[in-house]
Formats: sequence, C-alpha cells, structure tokens
Amino acid sequence: MELGLIGLGKMGGNMRERIRRAGHTVIGYDRNPDLADVDSLEELVSKLEGPRVVWVMVPAGGPTQETVDQLAELLSPGDVVVDGGNSRWTDDVKHAETLAAKGIGFVDCGVSGGVWGLENGYALMYGGEAEYVAKVQPVFDALKPEGEFGSVHAGKVGAGHFAKMVHNGIEYAMMQAFAEGWELLEAAPEVTDVREVFRSWQEGTVIRSWLLDLAVRALDDDEHLAKLKGWAADSGEGRWTVEAAIDHAVPLPAITASLFARFASRQDDSPQMKMIAALRNQFGGHAVESK
Amino acid sequence: MELGLIGLGKMGGNMRERIRRAGHTVIGYDRNPDLADVDSLEELVSKLEGPRVVWVMVPAGGPTQETVDQLAELLSPGDVVVDGGNSRWTDDVKHAETLAAKGIGFVDCGVSGGVWGLENGYALMYGGEAEYVAKVQPVFDALKPEGEFGSVHAGKVGAGHFAKMVHNGIEYAMMQAFAEGWELLEAAPEVTDVREVFRSWQEGTVIRSWLLDLAVRALDDDEHLAKLKGWAADSGEGRWTVEAAIDHAVPLPAITASLFARFASRQDDSPQMKMIAALRNQFGGHAVESK
Amino acid sequence: MELGLIGLGKMGGNMRERIRRAGHTVIGYDRNPDLADVDSLEELVSKLEGPRVVWVMVPAGGPTQETVDQLAELLSPGDVVVDGGNSRWTDDVKHAETLAAKGIGFVDCGVSGGVWGLENGYALMYGGEAEYVAKVQPVFDALKPEGEFGSVHAGKVGAGHFAKMVHNGIEYAMMQAFAEGWELLEAAPEVTDVREVFRSWQEGTVIRSWLLDLAVRALDDDEHLAKLKGWAADSGEGRWTVEAAIDHAVPLPAITASLFARFASRQDDSPQMKMIAALRNQFGGHAVESK
Amino acid sequence: MELGLIGLGKMGGNMRERIRRAGHTVIGYDRNPDLADVDSLEELVSKLEGPRVVWVMVPAGGPTQETVDQLAELLSPGDVVVDGGNSRWTDDVKHAETLAAKGIGFVDCGVSGGVWGLENGYALMYGGEAEYVAKVQPVFDALKPEGEFGSVHAGKVGAGHFAKMVHNGIEYAMMQAFAEGWELLEAAPEVTDVREVFRSWQEGTVIRSWLLDLAVRALDDDEHLAKLKGWAADSGEGRWTVEAAIDHAVPLPAITASLFARFASRQDDSPQMKMIAALRNQFGGHAVESK
Repeated sequence: MELGLIGLGKMGGNMRERIRRAGHTVIGYDRNPDLADVDSLEELVSKLEGPRVVWVMVPAGGPTQETVDQLAELLSPGDVVVDGGNSRWTDDVKHAETLAAKGIGFVDCGVSGGVWGLENGYALMYGGEAEYVAKVQPVFDALKPEGEFGSVHAGKVGAGHFAKMVHNGIEYAMMQAFAEGWELLEAAPEVTDVREVFRSWQEGTVIRSWLLDLAVRALDDDEHLAKLKGWAADSGEGRWTVEAAIDHAVPLPAITASLFARFASRQDDSPQMKMIAALRNQFGGHAVESK
Repeated sequence: MELGLIGLGKMGGNMRERIRRAGHTVIGYDRNPDLADVDSLEELVSKLEGPRVVWVMVPAGGPTQETVDQLAELLSPGDVVVDGGNSRWTDDVKHAETLAAKGIGFVDCGVSGGVWGLENGYALMYGGEAEYVAKVQPVFDALKPEGEFGSVHAGKVGAGHFAKMVHNGIEYAMMQAFAEGWELLEAAPEVTDVREVFRSWQEGTVIRSWLLDLAVRALDDDEHLAKLKGWAADSGEGRWTVEAAIDHAVPLPAITASLFARFASRQDDSPQMKMIAALRNQFGGHAVESK
Repeated sequence: MELGLIGLGKMGGNMRERIRRAGHTVIGYDRNPDLADVDSLEELVSKLEGPRVVWVMVPAGGPTQETVDQLAELLSPGDVVVDGGNSRWTDDVKHAETLAAKGIGFVDCGVSGGVWGLENGYALMYGGEAEYVAKVQPVFDALKPEGEFGSVHAGKVGAGHFAKMVHNGIEYAMMQAFAEGWELLEAAPEVTDVREVFRSWQEGTVIRSWLLDLAVRALDDDEHLAKLKGWAADSGEGRWTVEAAIDHAVPLPAITASLFARFASRQDDSPQMKMIAALRNQFGGHAVESK
Repeated sequence: MELGLIGLGKMGGNMRERIRRAGHTVIGYDRNPDLADVDSLEELVSKLEGPRVVWVMVPAGGPTQETVDQLAELLSPGDVVVDGGNSRWTDDVKHAETLAAKGIGFVDCGVSGGVWGLENGYALMYGGEAEYVAKVQPVFDALKPEGEFGSVHAGKVGAGHFAKMVHNGIEYAMMQAFAEGWELLEAAPEVTDVREVFRSWQEGTVIRSWLLDLAVRALDDDEHLAKLKGWAADSGEGRWTVEAAIDHAVPLPAITASLFARFASRQDDSPQMKMIAALRNQFGGHAVESK
C-alpha cells in the first residue's frame, strides 16, 4: 500500500525504512528538505492516491496539533490520519473530532522500539474505530516485530496513546527496580562482583527481562558506571501516567517514586532538603552544611 | 559426586530429583520419613564418604540454626555445608564461624526457581571461599539452568543470600510496576481490551520479561482476576532488602512502596486511615464512614 | 464597607456572619432562597453601591465559572470580584482575563478554617494586583484571625489559591504522619496507652501542633477509633498539588504518598494487589486468597 | 530527692541544671572531668544514699551498654536505673533483665527538647514497672514542661523509647511536609513572597505547629535558605521506626519517604540514577550526562 509519512527524524526515518522493506510505498515529508521525499504537505497529499493514509510522526503538542489542522484542510473524506507521535491521550479525542468534521478518520498509535526498532520491529498500540484501523493494518503489520505479538488494537480513540503511556510508566518503575537493586548490591561489602550477579540473573530468575539484558550490556561497557552522572531526563509519558492515575484515583506508589527520583536527580541542590537542614538546626542546634 | 540433602519439601524434593537426573548421588533426609532416604542426620552423615558436602534446605531461622549446630557436631574437618534456604545474609557469618571452629567449610546459596525449577533449572547465587565453592560446583552445575547464565559466585560468605535477597527486592518492584499499570489500564474507559494490551507487549517493548509472560498467563485464566482477592503475602527477603538499605543508607523508594502495598493489602481496615478520617472530621466536620 | 456575597453554604454562611460581626454590610445571594438576602444576582448587584466588591463562594469548576461569567455581564468597570472558593489556581488567570476585558478587577483568595472559622477566624491567602486587594482589605481583616498572622497577599493572580493548595498538600502529609505514627504505636505490645502518649506530646515536643490537639480530641471520643472506617475522601487540592509538582518537576514523595493512601482507602479490594497475588501464584505456586 | 546523672554533654548538662533549679540534688559524672561533679562511677554511687536513682544519658549502643553493665555491679537491690539516652527500644529489655538479675529496677525514658529544653522543659515518655517509675517521678516532674502535658508513662519496659522513636518518625514526615510545600511554593512564579505565606499560616490554619514557627524563624534568618546545602543527617530513630514498622507489617509510606529523602540528600551523585541513565541510553540512545 501507499503511506504518507510526516516527520522523518530518528524514529520516523527508521520507520520509513522498515515499511519500505516490507514492500510498501512511503512518501515522506519533513521540514528538513535533506530528509524529505516531497517539498510540502500539499505535494505529499497530491502524490497519494485516495483513500489516503497519512502517518504523523512529529513532536507532541504544538507541532502535532498544527499538522493535524493542516491535514484537516488538505485531505478528503474517507482518508485516515494516524498520530504515531508521543501525544497525550487527551489530545487524541480533539484531533479525532477536528478530522471527523471533515469526514476524515483518525487512529492514534503509541510506538515503542527506540533505536532497536528498525531491525527488531516496533511495538504498536493503537486506538480508534475498526474501519480506520483496517485501512492502516498493512503498515502496522510492516512495522511490528515478526513474532506473534507486538501490536494491539487497544480500544477507542486515545487507547493507543494511553496504553503506550502506561507501558512507559511500567518501564519507569522496572528501571527503578533494577537501579535500586544495583545500588544496594554495590553498597554491600560482601558482594564482590555485582556485574556477574546481574549477568547470572539472565536465566532461571523471576526478574529476567530485556531491561536486565540491557543493564548487563551497560555494565560490560563500564562496570561501575563511573563515567556517568546520576542524572535522568523524563518524558511526558511518565508525568501523564501519574496525572491519569490521579484522574482515576488509582494509587501508583512505585511508578510515582520512579518519576520523582528522576526529578531529584536533576537538582544540583535540593531546596526541600535545605528546609529539613534549617529545621533541624532550629530545634536541635544540629550542624548544617553551609555552602 | 555424592551429596547429602537435608529438607525435602517442595523445593528440596525437586532439587534432589534434578541433581539425580544429572547423574549424582543424593542422600536425602527429612523429618517426614515418607520423603527421606535415611532415618536420621547421623545416618545421612555416616553414609557419605568424606570429604562430604551437605546441603541444608530447611526453613530460615531456627530450623536452619539447629541443623547447622547439629552438623557442626556430626561432620569432620574438610567437609562443607551449603545453606540453600532463605536465610538472612547476616546469619551466614554466624553459621560460617560455628562451622569453621570445627574445620568445616560453609557456602551460602540463594536459590530462585519456584515450581519451574525442576524442568528449567534453578538460578543460584552463592558466597564463600573459592575452595569450598569448588567442592560444591558439580551440584551447582546440575541445578542451574542449561544456558550460559543462571549461577554466580557473588562474593564472600553472605553474598549469595544477599544477592538473592536483592533479586527478590527487585522482583517486588517489578511485580508492583505491572500491577499498577494493569490497574490503571483497567480504570481507563478508552482501553477496551487490557489483556490484549498485555499480550502484545511480549514483543518489541522495553518491558518484555518473564513476569509479563506470567501476567498474560494469569489473565488468560481469569481476564479481570475476578476470582482473586487483592491480598499478597510477603516473605522475609522483601523486608530484609529494606533493612539492608537502611543499614547502608541507600534509598529504595520503589521497592519499599511495593513492600508496603503488600502490608496494606492484608489489612481488613486501615488503622491509619481511621486516624485520617477522624482528623478530617475534627477540623472540617467532614462526613466519616462509620462501621 | 459593603460586600456582595454569593454562596451561603456552610462556609459562606459563617463568613457572612463573621463579616457582619465586624460591622460591615453583607448582601448575600444563594440559589436556596431560605439562605439568601436577595432573590437574584441582578438584585444583589443593584443593591450594592459602586465601586462594588463581590465575593464568590460557590463550588469550584462549573459553578464558579458560571458565576464569574454572569458577573462579567452585570458588574461595572472599577468593581472587584473575589473568588474565595476552592478553585484550581489555573482557573484564576482565565477568570481575571474575562473580568479585565470589562474593566473589572479580580482577586483570588484561598480560605482555610472549616467549622472553626466563625469563632477563630479564617486563614486567608490572596493573589492579585495591589489596587484590587486594597479594595477588599476591610473584608479580609474582618475574616482573618485576631492575632498578628493569618492573612497574606501571596503574589499575582492565582497565588492565593496556589498557596492554599500547597497548605492543603502539607496538611495531607502532616495528617498522614500522625496517622502512621498512631498505627505503629497501636501495633506495639509494649505501648499500653497510646492515647496518653498522644496527649503528652502536646507540650515540649517537636511535633506539637493543632492537628495533634485534634487527634487527642478524636481519641478522647473513641480511644481506638473503633467506630470509624479507614476511609478517607480527598478534595481537589491534594490532587492539584501533585499535578503542580509534576509541572514544576518538584519531587513530593510524602505528600503524594498521603494522597495515594486515601485513594487506596476507598477501594473495597485492590486491583493491583490482585495482580500481585496472581503473579505470585504463577511463579511460585503461592496460595492466593479467592473470593 | 537525690539523683545520680551519668553523661553531662549538651543534653545531660542542661538537664542537670533544670533538675537542680527544681530543688533536687544532682551528682553528675562525665568522662570529661571538667563537666563532672565526681571522678568515677564508684564515687557517684558511693555519694548517693540508697535506694538510689541513677539516670544514664550517654550515647546509645556501646556506651549505654557498658554503663548499664557497670551499674549492675555497683548498685544495690532496690536501686533504679533510668536510661534517658536515645537507645533502641529492643535494648531496653536486655538492660532491664541484666539489672533485674541483681534486684535493680529499670526505667527507659525518651527525652525530647533539644536546645529549648532547659527553659521550656523536656517532653518525656517512659516505660517500666509502676513501682520504679514512682521512684523517678520527682525528677520527671522537674524535667517536664510546666503545663498539663509533656510526660507520659507509656507502658512496659521499652515503651518509652518506642514512643520517642515514633515521635521522631512523625517529626521526620512533618518536616518533609513543610519542606516539600516550601520547595513547591518557591518554584511557582505566581507566588512572590513565600516567606510571608509561611508566616501567615501561623494562625487560623490546619497546619499551625511549632515546626511551622521554626520554619518562619529560619526563613527570617535566610529568606531563600541560600546559605544552606540540601544535606540532612538522620539519627537512629528514623531508621528504627521503619524497622519497627516492618516488624509489625505496618505501612509507613510518608515516614519512610522522609527517611529516604535524607539518605539521598547526602549522596554526591546517585548510583541508582546512573543506572537509570545507562538503561535509557541502552534502549533509546538517549543522551547521558558524563562526568
């Protein structure tokens, strides 16, 4: 089939390649002309035969909103737009409504895979009406991993991004689990070879997992991670997971702890711990560390 | 080689079987005569040719202490005792000293594998001096999974149980991660098929893992886990992980949150939340739920 | 001075009384004619001499929005609207803009005091431009406690509700602190009189506080809180505090734990702990509690 | 009455002064001869008329153990030892048994008050048999604050230190509550005067408390705490509170979060966040900060 693909960055570029390898035609557009197959959205739309499928793979928020608004003007009834970016699930309903007003279908799709996706496939979670999903299915099949699993029609509009968001929330807490365990092992004088402990866990244990494999790779590069700073970014999805939990009154202690650990990792000095130090000094005359 | 094995319960019994399948001789003792090969510890010791290796697989704490004390009397210099039970790592040094006073070696070994171990092998983490570990090595090789990984000499006496304990701490937080994500997905009206979302994650995602596979199996049995109560036991290892972290001043927010979630799950009513309700009523005249 | 007061429920009614006791004129409107001094917003506005000050004390969200929209039509340039309800601070900027378009001033005011406010005064935190705050000042002075403290011009529009929101976040964690401590004392067999321990803490300790006094009152009513269920509601402010923290990447582990404890207290059964039970059963053959 | 007091450091010295002001005789011993009234424990014991009351105010652990052991040799049946130090409650039973074997009574006493105790009195929580408590009562009455509250016979041996430990656990979470709230207010651009917000909270609010008063004092010294580092020590009592909670399977999410925040505050770089950074880099090619 034919696909229009908007956004050819690290993710989009590799996805174009994987879809092409599966025998489909991809016409790609990017603001960077060096990456693009066409010069404009108008040209992209004109080169696709209807009914068209256009996949949006641009940053969440403003850029995605803008692209959806432009497509609402350019596309025709019966066409389908897929948002494969990292949009907040609450944006999906708005985008679907904007497009539906013009008779254009909408599917939201959360994509996992990172730098490994081109070769191993991308895990896909999508939401929307079955008739629109069906039109995109060949592309989903091209992108997904080869095995039995790796893609799912998760539910209504928004369900794809919601499921991907929760995936990332789980990922945060799993990473935190390994990180906490690693720090504790490194602190124990009895345990003389933490890296080999991690390596051994790759078979027969309850915690064997791809993240564990990656931890072993990282430790093989740098046994005590001495070259790294304990500094971690967070993306919107971890934050949105906690916000969604608050909306639904679902307690998420481990996932939220993992998010907060990242916030704290980026502070040069902790304002709240200054207040703790100040209070200790006030009531107990405890020594404080001054700058 | 020849092994004496004390404790033939669910774990010990299957381990005897797996070691025998590897061609070794196992003489097993259990307080339950239906399970045992010999009638007493004395008989077990007398039937083994020196230098002997005796593996203790009885409950942690009192029973293990008692068994170690008896073996200190019955064994000879040059023999080796392995504690493969779920002992606290701090007990290992005591046991090693008791035995060393008689010239007997000691190795502690954390064993993971549960009901899957007989067929798939047991993950093993052991600690102690290299010369004692070497004497047990054929048994370790018989018990471990067939692949490249699954066993490790983690360090000094205590390192085996310490590493296994941390494994379980990580396991707690990974389980909590999936549990939190599942609850949030179930709460979201957009997501109409949570089980299929979990199933799809088994390929191409960052969170693919054996625990995820088990979650899918559980959901296949009972899609919404409607037959279960939200009640979870905890074993000593989760608690000890937090205690070890306190000893080493290592923050473990996600693992500790997971332990506390289990504590709370076993309370019919939460005393602390009664106090919250009482305080809200005091200052705000807020309605409380009475029994 | 003269004040228009909209919303005469538990809070608004008592506030009218306290303002009147201070010698001011209050014309109150409520949808419930039994509580109201006038029959309509129109009548309220017509009875006030300009420049008017109108205090809105209705539920946050829709009702407040509606009232602000109506006042934007009814009031005149130079009048001032105060929102004393529990609005989200992000609503304040919108309301200020709506009113500013008509030349009407806006002040947001967080009010703390509950059932004790009529006699002891209400703690007030307000935000907005100094010229509008000045017009409301006599009412603030009437409402606040008699001492030196209890009211503050916290900053720009939104700062009042933001400060009140953070007050409530702190309140959540302080309540949780006492609740956790109480539960632990009740669990300790050594401690035979927990209520007297709490009572004694009211002098000389680091934790003496009004909440402690209230805890003692509650325990005097019901020593072991046996009549209560461990069930606690939460208001918007606790949730918003966590959302604001996420916006600013500020870690709030204790406040968030307190919010989540309330969420969990309202669940008859915990879905996430069902998943934990299911996983334990899958890998370990551990017993589960069935319904 | 007459009291022997061992340990005349910052706490013990002030306590001697306060007891003397109440008209009692105190004979004090300290290893530092500049502080001591007598040259040895032997001399202290010989100068007291029986039945003697001896108050131990030395560091928990080894020093207290040693002192109790010496007193068991020096004192006579009918005498009473009070441990007013920061001992772990589990040590109290051991000490009571050691002394009971010689017919000597034991009372454990948790003391709160810090640098304010000399003038304002010390909050006291004590445990032990009523007959021994009665012998110490005049000293308790001298030390406690003047009001109605401030001292309690909390229960059996160990109950005093247990109650004091829980007091400190609550204190940790209350301090964390104010610290989190302060950091969030400082991060909000709307709120232009955080110190005045804190000051205003001292009346009419739910969170008014001595700790809030101290926070205001600290902010008056240094409005943004710019002179301090976000570094906080922790004493044994916070750690023991969490350990006691684990023993009793009581969830303490807010108190434990507060303890962990202190652990993290003392790390120059966070090992666990290095692992998070390493994992993000492995699966996503995410940038890491290198040293």
